[in-house]
Amino acid sequence: MGWGDLGVYGEPSRETPNLDQMAAEGMLFPNFYSANPLCSPSRAALLTGRLPIRNGFYTTNAHARNAYTPQEVVGGIPDSELLLPELLKEAGYTSKIVGKWHLGHRPQFHPLKHGFDEWFGSPNCHFGPYDNRARPNIPVYRDWEMVGRFYEEFPIDLKTGEANLTQIYLEEALGFIRRQQASQRPFFLYWAIDATHAPVYASRSFLGTSRRGRYGDAVREIDDSVGRILRLLRELRLGENTFVFFTSDNGAALISAPEQGGSNGPFLCGKQTTFEGGMRVPAIAWWPGHIPAGQSLSLAGLKPPRDRAVDGLDLLPAILQGQLMDRPMFYYRGNTLMAVTLGLYKAHFWTWTNSWEEFKQGIDFCPGQNVSGVTTHTQEEHTKLPLMFHLGRDPGERYPLSFGSAEYQDALGRITPAVQQHQEALVPGQPQLNVCNQAVMNWAPPGCEKLGKCLRPPESVPEKCSWLH
Amino acid sequence: MGWGDLGVYGEPSRETPNLDQMAAEGMLFPNFYSANPLCSPSRAALLTGRLPIRNGFYTTNAHARNAYTPQEVVGGIPDSELLLPELLKEAGYTSKIVGKWHLGHRPQFHPLKHGFDEWFGSPNCHFGPYDNRARPNIPVYRDWEMVGRFYEEFPIDLKTGEANLTQIYLEEALGFIRRQQASQRPFFLYWAIDATHAPVYASRSFLGTSRRGRYGDAVREIDDSVGRILRLLRELRLGENTFVFFTSDNGAALISAPEQGGSNGPFLCGKQTTFEGGMRVPAIAWWPGHIPAGQSLSLAGLKPPRDRAVDGLDLLPAILQGQLMDRPMFYYRGNTLMAVTLGLYKAHFWTWTNSWEEFKQGIDFCPGQNVSGVTTHTQEEHTKLPLMFHLGRDPGERYPLSFGSAEYQDALGRITPAVQQHQEALVPGQPQLNVCNQAVMNWAPPGCEKLGKCLRPPESVPEKCSWLH
Repeated sequence: MGWGDLGVYGEPSRETPNLDQMAAEGMLFPNFYSANPLCSPSRAALLTGRLPIRNGFYTTNAHARNAYTPQEVVGGIPDSELLLPELLKEAGYTSKIVGKWHLGHRPQFHPLKHGFDEWFGSPNCHFGPYDNRARPNIPVYRDWEMVGRFYEEFPIDLKTGEANLTQIYLEEALGFIRRQQASQRPFFLYWAIDATHAPVYASRSFLGTSRRGRYGDAVREIDDSVGRILRLLRELRLGENTFVFFTSDNGAALISAPEQGGSNGPFLCGKQTTFEGGMRVPAIAWWPGHIPAGQSLSLAGLKPPRDRAVDGLDLLPAILQGQLMDRPMFYYRGNTLMAVTLGLYKAHFWTWTNSWEEFKQGIDFCPGQNVSGVTTHTQEEHTKLPLMFHLGRDPGERYPLSFGSAEYQDALGRITPAVQQHQEALVPGQPQLNVCNQAVMNWAPPGCEKLGKCLRPPESVPEKCSWLH
Repeated sequence: MGWGDLGVYGEPSRETPNLDQMAAEGMLFPNFYSANPLCSPSRAALLTGRLPIRNGFYTTNAHARNAYTPQEVVGGIPDSELLLPELLKEAGYTSKIVGKWHLGHRPQFHPLKHGFDEWFGSPNCHFGPYDNRARPNIPVYRDWEMVGRFYEEFPIDLKTGEANLTQIYLEEALGFIRRQQASQRPFFLYWAIDATHAPVYASRSFLGTSRRGRYGDAVREIDDSVGRILRLLRELRLGENTFVFFTSDNGAALISAPEQGGSNGPFLCGKQTTFEGGMRVPAIAWWPGHIPAGQSLSLAGLKPPRDRAVDGLDLLPAILQGQLMDRPMFYYRGNTLMAVTLGLYKAHFWTWTNSWEEFKQGIDFCPGQNVSGVTTHTQEEHTKLPLMFHLGRDPGERYPLSFGSAEYQDALGRITPAVQQHQEALVPGQPQLNVCNQAVMNWAPPGCEKLGKCLRPPESVPEKCSWLH
């Protein structure tokens, strides 16, 4: 979902009354970033509080490449990483993930091995349908075992866009909240819905209801579901005792526009890029009675781990006292530091959208947008003299500052040491997204035998994954 | 000011707390249009309720040209037009215009000859400074007489951007409201500030306070001023008895970006164009106690004139009962119908931004945006087979519908008769913006003799005005 997809962020059709209301009751972050312009690395960062370059969710197979966790990827979240639910367990929390995990689908990467107590959802994206011969359909898990596959037990009609997955995920969420309230135990719910990810889907009752097409239908269903979750929390008198945070794992994927792509508002480009459209995302904090609200680690009375670098910040000072949090934002593709933002200045060390080859095939991450020398289709190096933008005057990254200006020199003088400090202290994690192997796909997830749905894997042939952009 | 310039419309720096609050207390229109992508014609339409093609605020000198009222223009608002203050006079209202008039600067076009009872402001834009030889500086009027000129008695520092005009205009507004309240007479205040028009200016106390540069400073001063006007209305217990409407006369002028240009949010291009960025504008209605509010003509118990075509709508059903107003929107340049929107479908009959010659000189109405075949630099005719966009799925006008699709055919089938009906009933007004003459400039406005500031006009040489885009 993109920055510009909610009414409260300026979506002109204004079809998100529940999220807009959540923002009105809570705190809106117009200046919030995902850790990566792609799903898996961003989610790994969300749960570990560490940049993908540290937690291993990146590739070194080629320069400046985005990578994620398709079925054939061998890697996943390392055991050495501490996830939020693992930390929360020490404080007595029960944790559930509903929806897309995306941190690896092989047995050792299972969410219940990484701190979660319950899971309903899928390990990978809901791509498909596949023939179950060259490639299996993606499994849907309940806790340890597969309970079916997308396009089979969990249908998605690519033609009409109909799928009732968001409703299923909603029921899972509401049921979990009710059970936790009944047992009077603290809980962490990670509600990782994916209806706005292509192939975009919505339930029958939402299909065709948006002015924005199918993507809008999916946004409306998510908005409605968030409203129902917040209402349940209030009904159960949990509202004042529950911190709720809404955000996205990357900007809207403009390659899927217009029918299946969202909006990044006034920002440049979208998902896959390190321009603002790729990583500036909607974010709303809600905690009635404490409005504005607080940050989850501190809320549970925990301290972040001290044996490793944590990029995540305690947002409490921002949320409770309105303090401006000003720290550098790092934009990576693979292990390449593409850009950094410090205060209102963003410096690009590399510019690239995607290759001419891809672009000529119609794969466009910046449709309708073209900033000469900025949205480049060759990898352009600016490490010596970064391209610099003032994100206040120029949020759309259209007007590079003049290299000779005092403003440029001053900003660069502050950015350079911040980058040096970051790079000198950086201990990259073992890259998890370098090796692919058809044999590791979801051929025979646990539980498949009960369903009679085990498939025969091909011979194991590890190979370098090919990451195109 | 552009659609995307207010926090409530998604401006990322969120620096308009007063206008955002006005929207929260009133009604926001995400789908509101000015009648023209340029100042004078749009303001003429605002005050007459009639499209510029009817009220004469257009040119026929060349095909599809924008025109306005610079000092040398001969024309202005025809006596035959009925302006809002003229209608309101029948209902006992006192009317004042503060700021830019822009409907003609020759004596017969004076606002006090067209229904206003008071005026403080200028007849033309605050361009300058001029040498008072080839071209006089623009006068500032109090009622019938000039009280000084821009860059002289009313300084604007082009280097620092400092001018206290918005504060002067604010005091004029507050004083008028106080006097009307004291005399218990109904009033209409047309507060036509122009601080966001290049050369952009702000008062010293606002300069440098925005994250958005000088343009943001101007927006912040306007926002603060609106807050002060609304507070005064409440203090005087006029709030529940006063309808307030905030809007802009066209989209942000992106040619002035980034330092002096605003934001049109997710929309294509800006001022001067008939894309959404040129004509979709912010609009907020406010009327506490009646929230949401009402429309001014009906509010005063008046009926619109019946002897002429009125394009303006009674917005009361939308504002009081939330009824969707669905009628065609017509986008003109000069007397050329460039585009029409019906429901969510927009059909372009002509596409043009500006000429290659201008564009190559750096005059860019769509910086960073380039939609092939849409943001054209030659005038492209599509009258037979219009370029069509779905503004719900594609508010940025990036993805023309396929000509062969059922959706295209269906939309065109509804648009064609609406356009026919419009064109058949259309009685164009006498074009006012065709003739220019250096002799009609503001050489010796009334009152100049008292100030010793009368200038000698050159010989009268009427000629065709040259409108470049």
